[in-house]
Amino acid sequence: MSYIDTEKTYKRGPQIITRKDAGAIVARVGLQPNWRCLDLGGGSGFLALFLANLTPSGSVTTYEIKKEHAEIIKKNIGASGFRNVKLVNKPAEKFAGGGFDLITMDVKGAEKIIPRAYKALRSGGFIAVYSPHIEQQIACRATMEKAGFKSVITIENSQKEWSSVHGFTHPVPSQTVHTGFLTFGRKE
Amino acid sequence: MSYIDTEKTYKRGPQIITRKDAGAIVARVGLQPNWRCLDLGGGSGFLALFLANLTPSGSVTTYEIKKEHAEIIKKNIGASGFRNVKLVNKPAEKFAGGGFDLITMDVKGAEKIIPRAYKALRSGGFIAVYSPHIEQQIACRATMEKAGFKSVITIENSQKEWSSVHGFTHPVPSQTVHTGFLTFGRKE
Amino acid sequence: MSYIDTEKTYKRGPQIITRKDAGAIVARVGLQPNWRCLDLGGGSGFLALFLANLTPSGSVTTYEIKKEHAEIIKKNIGASGFRNVKLVNKPAEKFAGGGFDLITMDVKGAEKIIPRAYKALRSGGFIAVYSPHIEQQIACRATMEKAGFKSVITIENSQKEWSSVHGFTHPVPSQTVHTGFLTFGRKE
Amino acid sequence: MSYIDTEKTYKRGPQIITRKDAGAIVARVGLQPNWRCLDLGGGSGFLALFLANLTPSGSVTTYEIKKEHAEIIKKNIGASGFRNVKLVNKPAEKFAGGGFDLITMDVKGAEKIIPRAYKALRSGGFIAVYSPHIEQQIACRATMEKAGFKSVITIENSQKEWSSVHGFTHPVPSQTVHTGFLTFGRKE
Repeated sequence: MSYIDTEKTYKRGPQIITRKDAGAIVARVGLQPNWRCLDLGGGSGFLALFLANLTPSGSVTTYEIKKEHAEIIKKNIGASGFRNVKLVNKPAEKFAGGGFDLITMDVKGAEKIIPRAYKALRSGGFIAVYSPHIEQQIACRATMEKAGFKSVITIENSQKEWSSVHGFTHPVPSQTVHTGFLTFGRKE
Repeated sequence: MSYIDTEKTYKRGPQIITRKDAGAIVARVGLQPNWRCLDLGGGSGFLALFLANLTPSGSVTTYEIKKEHAEIIKKNIGASGFRNVKLVNKPAEKFAGGGFDLITMDVKGAEKIIPRAYKALRSGGFIAVYSPHIEQQIACRATMEKAGFKSVITIENSQKEWSSVHGFTHPVPSQTVHTGFLTFGRKE
Repeated sequence: MSYIDTEKTYKRGPQIITRKDAGAIVARVGLQPNWRCLDLGGGSGFLALFLANLTPSGSVTTYEIKKEHAEIIKKNIGASGFRNVKLVNKPAEKFAGGGFDLITMDVKGAEKIIPRAYKALRSGGFIAVYSPHIEQQIACRATMEKAGFKSVITIENSQKEWSSVHGFTHPVPSQTVHTGFLTFGRKE
Repeated sequence: MSYIDTEKTYKRGPQIITRKDAGAIVARVGLQPNWRCLDLGGGSGFLALFLANLTPSGSVTTYEIKKEHAEIIKKNIGASGFRNVKLVNKPAEKFAGGGFDLITMDVKGAEKIIPRAYKALRSGGFIAVYSPHIEQQIACRATMEKAGFKSVITIENSQKEWSSVHGFTHPVPSQTVHTGFLTFGRKE
């Protein structure tokens, strides 16, 4: 079964990071198949599994504090069949290990974990922070710059869908315009 | 060297498909590491190499009719170090083979090749057509629907960059708002 | 009663030109209080009345072919209390008069009327065409350029609403992204 | 001479409120020809003169603290020929009078003046605050809600220009995407 079809069977608990945003992360950082990724604030595991799919010779470790969310992630990992993804049912700030190629964050108070995330990255590694609200984006960005990250950039990633029926082509009148702000940084 | 750093060394000939759009393709189709991809209209090879990076146990074959562009692609393949990507210096419509998981197109007159592309896909495989102009998008979309593709969808993919300096946060006033329209379809 | 409160009492029949787009027209052409405006394809009369409100020493004549729409416009004119707006229940292409400062169009087949509209404008006058579909926009724009209009420009006018509650600020996730394309030209 | 042609002769000092945003204000509040408007932070006077053009039986009073900007406004008022607009070379917070139909603000620290602006509006009157940065928008919006304003709404107003040449139609690739955030409120 294709990744995209399996994903449709995943359970959805909390607000997920959509594939649209996951794709923007993969593109911006230039994800490689052997990367070791750390995913803080796993939610329902959609981002972790999207990354796991594309890192067959690498790995993804995802931290999720809430038990009920961790249960959902566990189920979704099972459904995915991926063996390179690991779930830790602990708070994001308690993450262990280092030398990561990529750290992703979708967690309240992300700015408090950013300095440790910097240390846990290999030189040349990336951080990608997802912030639904602009206040979070501002706080994270400032912390990233203070923590030593370079090439810090924030993007609002959006996809406008077009309808085209019998010679009447126009953007779909009402659609999703906002999911979250994505802020990236690199450790040099 | 990271993929992203190697990419910076690639030569740029014709207008390229940016990583932003390449990431949208990867996300929308749920690219898998073992996919066999066909890339019609290689340009400078950026999309082909982006896909090659993420399909270590798969492959990418890219067709480019113009000799000078093919030369650039050849150089970029060399720089990438990837062994799973193959260049054919022939017109897109002369492509060979079948059973592909993904066919991407960035070529004038793409609509003429779409019916053959349909046949060359495995069941469940995807097509992704990049069209700088809306007239091309309209023509391709109509042809895709006639050719039998399902779940046809067109998106305009954009990333708005934000600036944030000392408590003054706002979108960068002037920036790129358009690259191309992306139209997707699936063979059921 | 304020214009905005009166407008809320207007009847809505067919799809209206929203104040958002009416405001874009007023701004782009630099509407003046003494302008004589011709509005082709009156719909429910919202644009005609918006213009009438801002042209107290000018006038607006609106053409609407459909009887049931004309009835709605008539009611709305009554509700508005404006005496500088006139309704003609005839097809747009049958419009009379000349020397107009502004001609607005929201009508199928607008491109067929554009050459006559050119003649009916004073030197320095403006045309503003509203097209829900891009095919209409393309046809109208080409006709406008052929008809002799200068400074032809098409805009997609959009307003993204932001939500801000207790320190959580972000664009409203789902909202209207498309109403119509606006194409402007000037007779020199 | 048309308003739009006269405007081209205006001097530009500081960053101006463009006609695009001025049109959004006019549309959102339903400006009427007899309104008395107060414009705080006149800049180069573009918004004040845009409003003056559309309020022939009303008036606009604009406050500008900086002498060099006030000089520019003075010149632009002269060029406009409008007699219903008055310049006061004083800080915005020193404004006098009351019973205004509309108060517009483009000034640093706007949030400090908002409570007084509330008092200076007639019942049913509107406030429109222009904020280049999101932090200003957040501060103003919170203050507006505390001050008693109703129907508070923030919009990001944008116009995407399309190019259409010989059957090749697409948004202009690089263009202005941000000017300012507009926050509106009404005194009930």
